[in-house]
Amino acid sequence: MSCNFGSKIKLTIFGQSHSQAIGCVLDGVPAGIKIDLERIEAFMARRAPGKNKISTARKEADKPNIISGIVDGVTCGAPICAIIENSDTRSADYDKLRALPRPSHSDYAAFMKHNGFNDIRGGGNFSGRMTAPLCFAGAVCIQILESKGIYIGAHISSIGTVDGTKFDPVNVTKDNLDSVKSKEIPVIDDSNGQKMVAAIEAARSEGDSLGGVVECAIIGIPAGIGDPIFDGIENRISSIVFGIPAVKGIEFGSGFDGSRLKGSENNDSFTCENGEIRTLTNNHGGILGGITSGMPVIFRCAFKPTPSIAKEQQTVNLTTGKNENLTVGGRHDPCIVHRAVPCVEAAAAVAITDLIL
Amino acid sequence: MSCNFGSKIKLTIFGQSHSQAIGCVLDGVPAGIKIDLERIEAFMARRAPGKNKISTARKEADKPNIISGIVDGVTCGAPICAIIENSDTRSADYDKLRALPRPSHSDYAAFMKHNGFNDIRGGGNFSGRMTAPLCFAGAVCIQILESKGIYIGAHISSIGTVDGTKFDPVNVTKDNLDSVKSKEIPVIDDSNGQKMVAAIEAARSEGDSLGGVVECAIIGIPAGIGDPIFDGIENRISSIVFGIPAVKGIEFGSGFDGSRLKGSENNDSFTCENGEIRTLTNNHGGILGGITSGMPVIFRCAFKPTPSIAKEQQTVNLTTGKNENLTVGGRHDPCIVHRAVPCVEAAAAVAITDLIL
Amino acid sequence: MSCNFGSKIKLTIFGQSHSQAIGCVLDGVPAGIKIDLERIEAFMARRAPGKNKISTARKEADKPNIISGIVDGVTCGAPICAIIENSDTRSADYDKLRALPRPSHSDYAAFMKHNGFNDIRGGGNFSGRMTAPLCFAGAVCIQILESKGIYIGAHISSIGTVDGTKFDPVNVTKDNLDSVKSKEIPVIDDSNGQKMVAAIEAARSEGDSLGGVVECAIIGIPAGIGDPIFDGIENRISSIVFGIPAVKGIEFGSGFDGSRLKGSENNDSFTCENGEIRTLTNNHGGILGGITSGMPVIFRCAFKPTPSIAKEQQTVNLTTGKNENLTVGGRHDPCIVHRAVPCVEAAAAVAITDLIL
Amino acid sequence: MSCNFGSKIKLTIFGQSHSQAIGCVLDGVPAGIKIDLERIEAFMARRAPGKNKISTARKEADKPNIISGIVDGVTCGAPICAIIENSDTRSADYDKLRALPRPSHSDYAAFMKHNGFNDIRGGGNFSGRMTAPLCFAGAVCIQILESKGIYIGAHISSIGTVDGTKFDPVNVTKDNLDSVKSKEIPVIDDSNGQKMVAAIEAARSEGDSLGGVVECAIIGIPAGIGDPIFDGIENRISSIVFGIPAVKGIEFGSGFDGSRLKGSENNDSFTCENGEIRTLTNNHGGILGGITSGMPVIFRCAFKPTPSIAKEQQTVNLTTGKNENLTVGGRHDPCIVHRAVPCVEAAAAVAITDLIL
Repeated sequence: MSCNFGSKIKLTIFGQSHSQAIGCVLDGVPAGIKIDLERIEAFMARRAPGKNKISTARKEADKPNIISGIVDGVTCGAPICAIIENSDTRSADYDKLRALPRPSHSDYAAFMKHNGFNDIRGGGNFSGRMTAPLCFAGAVCIQILESKGIYIGAHISSIGTVDGTKFDPVNVTKDNLDSVKSKEIPVIDDSNGQKMVAAIEAARSEGDSLGGVVECAIIGIPAGIGDPIFDGIENRISSIVFGIPAVKGIEFGSGFDGSRLKGSENNDSFTCENGEIRTLTNNHGGILGGITSGMPVIFRCAFKPTPSIAKEQQTVNLTTGKNENLTVGGRHDPCIVHRAVPCVEAAAAVAITDLIL
Repeated sequence: MSCNFGSKIKLTIFGQSHSQAIGCVLDGVPAGIKIDLERIEAFMARRAPGKNKISTARKEADKPNIISGIVDGVTCGAPICAIIENSDTRSADYDKLRALPRPSHSDYAAFMKHNGFNDIRGGGNFSGRMTAPLCFAGAVCIQILESKGIYIGAHISSIGTVDGTKFDPVNVTKDNLDSVKSKEIPVIDDSNGQKMVAAIEAARSEGDSLGGVVECAIIGIPAGIGDPIFDGIENRISSIVFGIPAVKGIEFGSGFDGSRLKGSENNDSFTCENGEIRTLTNNHGGILGGITSGMPVIFRCAFKPTPSIAKEQQTVNLTTGKNENLTVGGRHDPCIVHRAVPCVEAAAAVAITDLIL
Repeated sequence: MSCNFGSKIKLTIFGQSHSQAIGCVLDGVPAGIKIDLERIEAFMARRAPGKNKISTARKEADKPNIISGIVDGVTCGAPICAIIENSDTRSADYDKLRALPRPSHSDYAAFMKHNGFNDIRGGGNFSGRMTAPLCFAGAVCIQILESKGIYIGAHISSIGTVDGTKFDPVNVTKDNLDSVKSKEIPVIDDSNGQKMVAAIEAARSEGDSLGGVVECAIIGIPAGIGDPIFDGIENRISSIVFGIPAVKGIEFGSGFDGSRLKGSENNDSFTCENGEIRTLTNNHGGILGGITSGMPVIFRCAFKPTPSIAKEQQTVNLTTGKNENLTVGGRHDPCIVHRAVPCVEAAAAVAITDLIL
Repeated sequence: MSCNFGSKIKLTIFGQSHSQAIGCVLDGVPAGIKIDLERIEAFMARRAPGKNKISTARKEADKPNIISGIVDGVTCGAPICAIIENSDTRSADYDKLRALPRPSHSDYAAFMKHNGFNDIRGGGNFSGRMTAPLCFAGAVCIQILESKGIYIGAHISSIGTVDGTKFDPVNVTKDNLDSVKSKEIPVIDDSNGQKMVAAIEAARSEGDSLGGVVECAIIGIPAGIGDPIFDGIENRISSIVFGIPAVKGIEFGSGFDGSRLKGSENNDSFTCENGEIRTLTNNHGGILGGITSGMPVIFRCAFKPTPSIAKEQQTVNLTTGKNENLTVGGRHDPCIVHRAVPCVEAAAAVAITDLIL
């Protein structure tokens, strides 16, 4: 099973990169919520391909067609189903990949799982394109969360070896989040952004690719949300964030760096300011014992460099069992990290909505 | 909800640090499997407290009492329930913590979630002690997996700033795994282990604590296990590993470091050796598109330093709303990373058994 | 949550009676299964409206548009999504029902659950029309089951007070099942069928409606499928069959009548014939302890008479709180039992496929 | 998987009839609820065996030992685990049943499912004894529901061919429910009860057994609870009620009888009395479209006669494949319907609590 997430809300994602359409069903959204479609489309446009030189040349409008669950702009309590057409598909590009799996792509694993019956065109339902319906669902959940005063924003923390500025984990505000979202390259300090773009363009001209790290903050979430053991905030967020293709790591608060500190350095002292209990630092990333502390929830996720590169690589011909060299054609992203930023926000929004409803 | 994991098998964990007992129910284990109880107890002993100076002084036999599901040493298809007594409890140590939450511990979040009705004694069901039943379940699953040629082993990759040697992600063998498990400090190179012990003892004598990183390898797992999107190996393993208290990050394969490489550096070329398809490197950590590639599954998880330290810290009195200083009494681990090694193995074993049955 | 069923396969149903379309996602179907689309359409045609005088006048082609999961007629392992257009909608018919809930229809309960934001048009997602995607999913599952030698068939056991012949619970064959399916009125003895049609036409001409009982048999299912306690065959089948609108009861084997027998009368003796263990009678309906016995699984479900009738009825105006008389317009089925027969087969097919994969 | 139920609360049942103990874990109960242990024990005593001539001679105190989740009589938010010892076991009685499955008992199906490794002693985890932990969980849920004004009560509607009086589905009160619970034979009209006892004693003296029907009412439940399609009240209640061994049918409201009525007879007119919307009749059993209407929820479930009878029966020797006669020894109930009454209440309480939290 692959396509279901959630307990109080249930998100089901379907489609393949080159099937007639892709889409999702979001069940459990209460009736009576006004949904702003323009904002959903604006959110999805942040992820959409074909916009610039640092993304794939595939052009898709990614305009969702809502076929159920919303009547006159208001949820009716029935599952919300949205369909997104696949229009600009060039399946012929993928013919030779059936026998020649791309290194570090899902091709080989999918072949083994599905005995060769997987849809190889465009990566099938392993494609990064499956994050379009995730963004639709996230955009709906973001509107639900905002009505409760919860805001989510992400930005590029690094691309390749170019590091950006991080959020202030104690004081990050809605304005901080909003100012990043409107940028073509969602970074806090634009001079870092220019270096990142230059690095991506350099990789692309070499027929290579880059990965990076996305940092996400959730603010306004009250203390006491989540559960210990298997249903904590970390468990829930990680289990959906790893649903974004290419994510290979996640850390909350001080994360891996925090594991190198002493307790006295990593512990976050409590303080009471104007009747509100906060912590002076936020190495715990807003989560204690799996449960929110009321401080901003902060996490970072690592994206591997896009596996589809133009450089010649070694693979195995699955038909003959012989080693062969492979040069991948088709249209690919030299880096997907900037397009992944809204996907991370969407994943976080779905996970938190599932906990908070 | 907090205590359930799994789909084909279902693990339910119950108990609090100072309740009469803790335990677990493991449902879905097929009938007819011979269970070696001595090996289960030996596995659980690796986690048990009170064994040496670098662990808590609390002494618990941690001997599981199997009350259902196994008849004459063989599973009967009914859920397996095991109970572990809590004997060495000193609840009085915890009285003052009800009003004074320990920095970076679950106390405050639990208080907010449960309106102060949470069991504060020993951390209640937020305690690291809840990993004892996880280890029981893992020990059962390890025997199931071994019957299918799948082996799991973990070791300490770092404690504080002391780094250890890592597994060879391409060629790690069952012997490699076994040789580490028998050690009191489970590291590959014992000279690193001595430095780690020294670091822990130093932290302890300062009333401080250390965290670290545990690396885990799963070998012998065939290609084609797992699912894309929300039910991949990464999603499943992360969602259970974050159930171990103090884990704040997880990465698979080259993980966060891999996000700084180019595609041409991070991609793993396929090769066919003696009819077997493998990769020359293993930056993908044995997982492509959420599905196993047949290479060793490799992941690392970051543990924060133990929050309960003897040094004076600042907190807030939940009754008065005033800031107060706190010195934590009771018996605490200056580092839990070495005791967490079998917990990580157990978590991986449960996750993989759930996928493979 | 309302629209999800299953564990090894997951069925998600979406849409409302008068939304742009209705449909379903069926996840977990293995890759490489050839799907006969014509047979799916033929199966769905058995349920489709507008065919004769004893059904609603609403005309819908009910032709599924498969937008993902099947490539060149073969499953690819990705979720199968099928969409069915809603074309012949007359939403104006429903305007006055928003304030005047129809007796024994879902209107009032839906209003209370969704604070009046439910989609009232055509019953929204409470409509019997939601069984069209259920039939699509069932038709796929039926093909999977047939490849394993498992066959499912249902027929009308009674309509109103007109009783039909029942299946022979011990010896029912695939031929018995097939011969019923091809009939416009799916009954074993056609003389009963004629009486049933006459009863429906009489009710219709009085502006009234009828209910009835559908009996279903599953043959070829091996012994040992299912689980005790909460995951038995009875639990699973009942939890999906009550998803068909208007079902108010279900019984397995001798059911309610069996509760009036003595043990010595109701018990089914075992016998061994040609090395095969069978029972001489089948009061247990093929299920013992929640698990299949290898005998035909037999169940019957009771459908209430269609609540939408032309006769004047008493209701309450939800706006004014005053009692009012109501005469329901629109196009309604005087009886849905004959159209429900394939729905019951579909529900059984989905439940059994979920257990058997 | 067999032993898990629920979504917002999760009930896990474990144990076998002759294992060291049986028990359950109830997760998801909010913290801060005062639990009256005496009332739990009194509730469980209604089910306990060994009390009179119309029940099995096996004597069990059925006193639950609560080992987690409740501190000083108040829930702490951690899973509640209760253990019930199995003391009066006579496993020798069951030796010959391993090869000779009892007609209409789970023996044969369990053997086939578990390849003969099932725990045959006392029926293993197929035993009616597994309803003791269900009753514990139900007794906890009943206290939660009562704090919200929801009350549940069941009674014997028939035993064999002796019919009792039914609840008034429109006007049943808490007093009606309470007055039945205190009786040794829980019937509305005691003269019926005397006939039922006489019928059971007659069956027992013949070495035979009887079944029956239990009717249950849930009052005080507000309108708007539940979901359409797969998560309605009927789906949820049936999926747990079929977890009680020997249940072979369930119907809601007018159920099977209602399927023989016309719409104009079965429909329940709405009326507004003192600002409260009710129905004049209650053929819908308090459920419309899967959702509560605010009227009493009424259902009846059919129990088959106890399959373990003293009369000689025909079975097959699983070792030799030969037909053999079997006379069942051991201690068995000539009728379990009267002991099942609290089990049905418990099942309903767990299902409704899961929906209402």
